[in-house]
Amino acid sequence: MVQRLERAGLRSEILPTAGHPAVYGEWLQAGADRPTVLVYGHYDVQPPEPLELWHNPPFEPAIQDGRITARGVSDDKAPLLLTVQVFGAYLQTLGRLPVNLKVLFEGEEEVGSAHLPALVREQAARLQADMAISADGGMWSADFPSLTVSGRGLTALEFSVHGPASDLHSGRHGGALHNPLHALAAIIASLHDAQGRVAVEGFYDGIAPLSEEYRAGLRTLPFSDEEYLKFTGAAATYGEAGYSTLERQWNRPTVEVNGMWGGYTGEGSKTVLPAQAHAKLTCRLVPGQEPRRIRRLLEDHLRRATPPGVRLEFAPGEHAARAYQLPEGHPARRATLQVLQDVYGQVPLEVGMGGSIPILETFQEVLGVDTVLFSFAVGDENIHAPNEFFRVNRLYEGQHAWVRLLWALGEGLPPQQGEAHG
Amino acid sequence: MVQRLERAGLRSEILPTAGHPAVYGEWLQAGADRPTVLVYGHYDVQPPEPLELWHNPPFEPAIQDGRITARGVSDDKAPLLLTVQVFGAYLQTLGRLPVNLKVLFEGEEEVGSAHLPALVREQAARLQADMAISADGGMWSADFPSLTVSGRGLTALEFSVHGPASDLHSGRHGGALHNPLHALAAIIASLHDAQGRVAVEGFYDGIAPLSEEYRAGLRTLPFSDEEYLKFTGAAATYGEAGYSTLERQWNRPTVEVNGMWGGYTGEGSKTVLPAQAHAKLTCRLVPGQEPRRIRRLLEDHLRRATPPGVRLEFAPGEHAARAYQLPEGHPARRATLQVLQDVYGQVPLEVGMGGSIPILETFQEVLGVDTVLFSFAVGDENIHAPNEFFRVNRLYEGQHAWVRLLWALGEGLPPQQGEAHG
Repeated sequence: MVQRLERAGLRSEILPTAGHPAVYGEWLQAGADRPTVLVYGHYDVQPPEPLELWHNPPFEPAIQDGRITARGVSDDKAPLLLTVQVFGAYLQTLGRLPVNLKVLFEGEEEVGSAHLPALVREQAARLQADMAISADGGMWSADFPSLTVSGRGLTALEFSVHGPASDLHSGRHGGALHNPLHALAAIIASLHDAQGRVAVEGFYDGIAPLSEEYRAGLRTLPFSDEEYLKFTGAAATYGEAGYSTLERQWNRPTVEVNGMWGGYTGEGSKTVLPAQAHAKLTCRLVPGQEPRRIRRLLEDHLRRATPPGVRLEFAPGEHAARAYQLPEGHPARRATLQVLQDVYGQVPLEVGMGGSIPILETFQEVLGVDTVLFSFAVGDENIHAPNEFFRVNRLYEGQHAWVRLLWALGEGLPPQQGEAHG
Repeated sequence: MVQRLERAGLRSEILPTAGHPAVYGEWLQAGADRPTVLVYGHYDVQPPEPLELWHNPPFEPAIQDGRITARGVSDDKAPLLLTVQVFGAYLQTLGRLPVNLKVLFEGEEEVGSAHLPALVREQAARLQADMAISADGGMWSADFPSLTVSGRGLTALEFSVHGPASDLHSGRHGGALHNPLHALAAIIASLHDAQGRVAVEGFYDGIAPLSEEYRAGLRTLPFSDEEYLKFTGAAATYGEAGYSTLERQWNRPTVEVNGMWGGYTGEGSKTVLPAQAHAKLTCRLVPGQEPRRIRRLLEDHLRRATPPGVRLEFAPGEHAARAYQLPEGHPARRATLQVLQDVYGQVPLEVGMGGSIPILETFQEVLGVDTVLFSFAVGDENIHAPNEFFRVNRLYEGQHAWVRLLWALGEGLPPQQGEAHG
């Protein structure tokens, strides 16, 4: 990354952290009258497993039918790489950028950016900027340009249920000791009620109801449950009673089990009463929910839900981010909408995001800047799953849009041609 | 196995099946006035996983503190091997055995003896015997000789819960589709009620209540919950309300989850809403429960418990055995009790067994003989678990006892010296 940034014409260096290092780059010769823009992205990727479901090896990219398939190509390598190509193109053609540029590419986004807040605090003076733009994020649909105006927060929790000291024969002992798998199932089942609501006490406290105006706006978006089910292959939508699919994705919090395991999971049969069972949970959060408070409520619930005869143990580690909301008056909001309209010839939609980008909160708290998400990934590109892909045409559209956005931020927008809505 | 039996002096051959072959051996020159005894055992073992919990490699036996540690040493390699040593000792010293002997060692006991019933039917004429004695089974305690007079039956069922067509990002989609892990947890949790009873409709139908006399007998056995918890390392006993630990282990049926898995189970975090979740179940059965009927009841329950938005799928395969009860008048019952008393100098206990030996049912149905369990394994030897072991002294005690038992069955018991009880 450092070499790529240097080749593009930025001064660059590695910023060590207690985990994977971050990469910093800068070009600050646009002049004091030009804004300073901090560009964010991440070079790390999710684990590629399960490997057997990939059509090509996950780290040997294949191009077919206008798609590049590889782990990380959509989240976040291609969206990040195209920004570097734009910086280089400016510096190699005009010999300058329209703005003062700072770049921060991290290596721990997929594990909750655990060490980045400390780094940003340590480097706060150097990272000072007028606004942040993220190459991570992703558009809602391949058919409609969009600006993401909200994202859900996150808290994560891994725990184990311990029963006997070692695995026992389930014929000999079954029925006489609590099976940690039974206990785990009961605990997980207790997290939701029959209406799909989270049953953790206090979980929904402090969340403002959705306005009728907002909900009406959502209903005008080009989205149908039918198409969504076709895309995901699920048999039916399912979730918190009283909310639409988009509301459930963007505006309502969740408790989600990401992994659960215990006992014998290989081929054939093994009649074991296992010593342990495990689960990994994440909560998606909305404005009004403080991640640490939610984690504490969840821990309390899990303790109360643990039946006699087994013991609960929480894995160490925090992984938390508040929900995100792009302010109406953000300095890049109007420019972003205009550039998308110019590149795509369509009025962009303003949409929510179910996922989380923890670093946005740190930029807000430490640097005092809000972040615009300006990624050319799309929500259907199998991120975090086998056969992650990125559309080749979006490499070009993304470069085009970033060239225009930096220009608009530095040189100003041309006279306004239309108004974004959605 | 064939070579070992031939070296001992038996005529031996491999009997192929559609799965792992069985091994047959015979020595039939004791004379028509002597009984024919069919000896059963199995050479296959459980999978050794999880490997990291073994103190020595599971297939490189280690001897320490009077114990041999290796996968399969207790279930059923040592108990089987010592019978072959006894056959050889008779033939090499006296030149004869006290009984006509047939030996059947199978290779699929740990996967439910799937192909053995067909083999026994096919070879029924050749396997004809007056009684069967099993080298598989195991004694209840290292401190008290015992005869096992009952065993629970078995039925097994593996199933999957399918949601979206592939793994999805849990941030983007969480809350809008049913997570197969949530559905699986709810399904598993529905199998038991809050009193630890199996909640499958009709599950307990046809089971006779335990007699007060039987229950009183159990209470006289040298067993305490406190010692049991010390041995297993569990925090508390737990099971069907209204029954003692031994009743729960020996006389009450169960539904047990042996394995459960789905989503991301590696190190760290992966925010996935998985496409599938899986579970392996076994039921332990008691007299009055027909395995195929119980499996059907369980399937019906699972179907009813499956929430909308996911799809249930049963894995192929049956794995079933009825519960076992040693008849009072079995021709080897009195001899067995006497031999144990002579070898150990203690009146043997009559005990139940929580586990299942599916072949006992086949011997009853096809050959018309009941089986005495005469194994020198003990219930605390970590069978089906890491660090399975066998006590070295029991190799000698077992050989001693088998020599005496075959003698008693062929030559008759000496005048009775005592009466077994317990």
